[in-house]
Amino acid sequence: MAINWENLDKLSSYKKLQSLKGAVSIAKELGGADGAKRVAEYSVPMGAGLTYNFAAKQVDDKVLAVLKELAEEAQLTEKYAELYNGAVVNTGEKRLVLHQLTRGQLGNDVMADGTNKRDFYIKEQNRIAEFADKVHAGKVVNAKGEKFTTVVQIGIGGSDLGPRAMYLALENWAKANNTFKMEAKFISNVDPDDATAVLKSTDLAHSIFILVSKSGTTLETLTNESFVKDALKKAGLDPAKHMIAVTSETSPLAHNPDYLEAFYMDDYIGGRYSSTSGVGGAVLSLAFGPKVFADFLDGAAEEDKLSANKDLLKNPALLDALIGVYERNVQEYPSTAVLPYSQALSRFPAHLQQLDMESNGKSVNRFGEKIDYVTGPVIFGEPGTNGQHSFYQLLHQGTDVTPLQFIAFKENQAGNDVVIEDSTSQKKLCANVVAQIMAFACGKTDENPNKAFAGERPSSLIYANKLTPKVLGALLAHFENKVMFQGFAWNINSFDQEGVQLGKVLAKKVLAHNTDGALKAFADFFEI
Amino acid sequence: MAINWENLDKLSSYKKLQSLKGAVSIAKELGGADGAKRVAEYSVPMGAGLTYNFAAKQVDDKVLAVLKELAEEAQLTEKYAELYNGAVVNTGEKRLVLHQLTRGQLGNDVMADGTNKRDFYIKEQNRIAEFADKVHAGKVVNAKGEKFTTVVQIGIGGSDLGPRAMYLALENWAKANNTFKMEAKFISNVDPDDATAVLKSTDLAHSIFILVSKSGTTLETLTNESFVKDALKKAGLDPAKHMIAVTSETSPLAHNPDYLEAFYMDDYIGGRYSSTSGVGGAVLSLAFGPKVFADFLDGAAEEDKLSANKDLLKNPALLDALIGVYERNVQEYPSTAVLPYSQALSRFPAHLQQLDMESNGKSVNRFGEKIDYVTGPVIFGEPGTNGQHSFYQLLHQGTDVTPLQFIAFKENQAGNDVVIEDSTSQKKLCANVVAQIMAFACGKTDENPNKAFAGERPSSLIYANKLTPKVLGALLAHFENKVMFQGFAWNINSFDQEGVQLGKVLAKKVLAHNTDGALKAFADFFEI
Repeated sequence: MAINWENLDKLSSYKKLQSLKGAVSIAKELGGADGAKRVAEYSVPMGAGLTYNFAAKQVDDKVLAVLKELAEEAQLTEKYAELYNGAVVNTGEKRLVLHQLTRGQLGNDVMADGTNKRDFYIKEQNRIAEFADKVHAGKVVNAKGEKFTTVVQIGIGGSDLGPRAMYLALENWAKANNTFKMEAKFISNVDPDDATAVLKSTDLAHSIFILVSKSGTTLETLTNESFVKDALKKAGLDPAKHMIAVTSETSPLAHNPDYLEAFYMDDYIGGRYSSTSGVGGAVLSLAFGPKVFADFLDGAAEEDKLSANKDLLKNPALLDALIGVYERNVQEYPSTAVLPYSQALSRFPAHLQQLDMESNGKSVNRFGEKIDYVTGPVIFGEPGTNGQHSFYQLLHQGTDVTPLQFIAFKENQAGNDVVIEDSTSQKKLCANVVAQIMAFACGKTDENPNKAFAGERPSSLIYANKLTPKVLGALLAHFENKVMFQGFAWNINSFDQEGVQLGKVLAKKVLAHNTDGALKAFADFFEI
Repeated sequence: MAINWENLDKLSSYKKLQSLKGAVSIAKELGGADGAKRVAEYSVPMGAGLTYNFAAKQVDDKVLAVLKELAEEAQLTEKYAELYNGAVVNTGEKRLVLHQLTRGQLGNDVMADGTNKRDFYIKEQNRIAEFADKVHAGKVVNAKGEKFTTVVQIGIGGSDLGPRAMYLALENWAKANNTFKMEAKFISNVDPDDATAVLKSTDLAHSIFILVSKSGTTLETLTNESFVKDALKKAGLDPAKHMIAVTSETSPLAHNPDYLEAFYMDDYIGGRYSSTSGVGGAVLSLAFGPKVFADFLDGAAEEDKLSANKDLLKNPALLDALIGVYERNVQEYPSTAVLPYSQALSRFPAHLQQLDMESNGKSVNRFGEKIDYVTGPVIFGEPGTNGQHSFYQLLHQGTDVTPLQFIAFKENQAGNDVVIEDSTSQKKLCANVVAQIMAFACGKTDENPNKAFAGERPSSLIYANKLTPKVLGALLAHFENKVMFQGFAWNINSFDQEGVQLGKVLAKKVLAHNTDGALKAFADFFEI
């Protein structure tokens, strides 16, 4: 089928959607006699046993019908098929977009760089698994023949946020399930105090460092590599015996004797989409064993498969994406909060912040033409119940409406709990998420307006039994695919990031003292 | 002088301000020949050697003149004087607002609860200092007579975010300055995996736990206390020998033999304003010694004093507040990003998120009447340069404009650095912040719109030589006072949080199985 890449505001379904502004009162829908029925019906199975519930979103069957039309008119699943069949979807950088291929194959064989890319990703995954097994078995050891006990990832942006969020998400699960192999740490910021603090608390002689940079030229990462090498040398250690690289085959880090081993990715995997490549694979396989990483990939693959479903109500990522477009472009909400009721997901919002804002914070379409509608929202969030004692005040009673994404699990990971006032902490945690959904949706009248809640604040709930590696993979892929579908709907390129270039260029000028005017005046504050 | 508490939209200066929408092009102001002059002039000294630079904000002398009028017409410094002289500024809960009194006295003696409150706060600070000195000297020890080496704070919201952010901000400074006494850890979430993970990595026999709850009834905190007590008992330890409390004198935790010691605060200090009370004082004094905490208070007191200055251009918190009102109510920007170029401030944005959004996320004025203008924005942020590799894409090229608050320091804390390509990491860090300010302000044209930057994205820069305890105190107080002034300008009560109540009530209903309809249907997902 020929794909028609058109701007959102050219679609007739979008015009219909705009006529549905404010069409649904969730207070009425959920507060009324049919509330329970709606909760049961407005629910879509995700991968790995997760469920996407959108009963507290501002949609009804009429809005859903138009979203369905929009999905078809914009050919959203067809565009996804283009992507996984190997089209040049990253139009800005003229690249394929293949991160889904790191965890499964949905379409045609994709050939690039003279190789079958699925085979390439599997090969790298297997090489990482073998290496991790050797480290765990004491076959790859330090100079004294001792086992490595710690892994330290050096990377920034997508080489840091995703892998770090995934590590934290599974650390306690792995400990409770006897699959915890090594502690992982992360160095990212060019602020020298970051590397100093991590290195001070690390047993260097028993640590493997993973240098992660696709290009092999990321300034922060190379700077921190020097930091680490200095520290290793001062400790009488040989850096080449303690460092591995995750990079592209064309980078200066590849096939380089300075590294014990190198694992490869390529230009078809953007940093923010790289957690399922070697960028996440090396650190997660070393920390938890290759089986955990493989399960994580399986969960993502399940979700990818669901995302190919043409039926909107059987495609949770597509549905989530289009409800988001309705909220952003019709309801005109400027930001979205991600609220996981799970301490393990404490850095998941920071990862989604990059994933979403770096992908869809664009003002031109995929052909480089200015567009006339808003695109990606601001994304922020903290885990519940912590957030309840922080910024929820504004979410409940502030003057703007912020759509909410709740995430929760019936069981905790560590299996340790305490009963206070007849309920466990885990039950309290879940009771709170349920209570918040209803409080935001239905509000409450009160004689005193200061104690009144307007309600009509939409949220969705993603939930599962427990946060396992497979569930985490599905959760991650859900958001990756949601962001992709929104990018398709907005007709933008979600896979480049030209917006980061200007700052880099100016920073180089400053460091070269090649400045004048206001730039020089600012630089003088810091005696640069 | 009689104070006139009027809504913002009743002020003639506000109407003038509205006529100045889009009045200033920062690209022109900063990009032109007078750019350097503007950078030098649009600068205000803060406390403790900090500087507030607003050269990259969308203001000029005309806008500033109207902001000055607004400050006078709204009697903003007079309202601040009311507050520190002990008026009932928290109108919702009918309470005084005295957090500034924990660090200095700007006005009249304030008598409440039959005591001089400044004396009360000093007395508690001194009691904490004595206790901390005894712990450090080995005079307060565990049952085996061994020194305590770790302090664990149990608290949520303001009892967690502020103290945690302050601890992280000073940890490396204290280590580099030989004043690091004990490691601090924090337990906050009711998610049982939070307490489990912290306790697993903690040497219980050598730990002091600080239970922090003003009311002594915070569900999360009491639940986590039980968790900790169970763990202590299982380890054969007596909880009463390992726990202290920070609470109000009327709480069940006060004068209670279950605690080794209790330190007191009162109803006049809101959680999000409590870092300079015992809530921050106990953990920071134990971690770094009482002198560090005293310096931190001195920095805050300096800033509080500056905030009393009636001259807008000599009052950085007031100026920052009013530029924020201009951005929010005239320029209509929905959110603000806080971007510290300092890894030590990694959780400072999360604290400001609570401080700002919980204080000013309100839709009624201080008399409980609905207002017709927007109030507090969404606040989010991560440290730079990390954020540059994450969400900055949207900030540079997204469809909405987000005002930015940069924070940076000429020197790092640990004093350890490395030279790569002729510059230290610290210089690179500072070069980046300077470059970003100019990139956001001036943008860049390009034949390819995908590589073009619109610019005109306002930011301010707070900077100092180094992040020390005193500088941190001034930085904290600056934002507290900024939020206070904005609350005054919006004529709202920045000191209550009624928006958190409904969720609590509904969660209790859920836990009591007292539900029906949609609420029951949601609860069923988690078998509650």
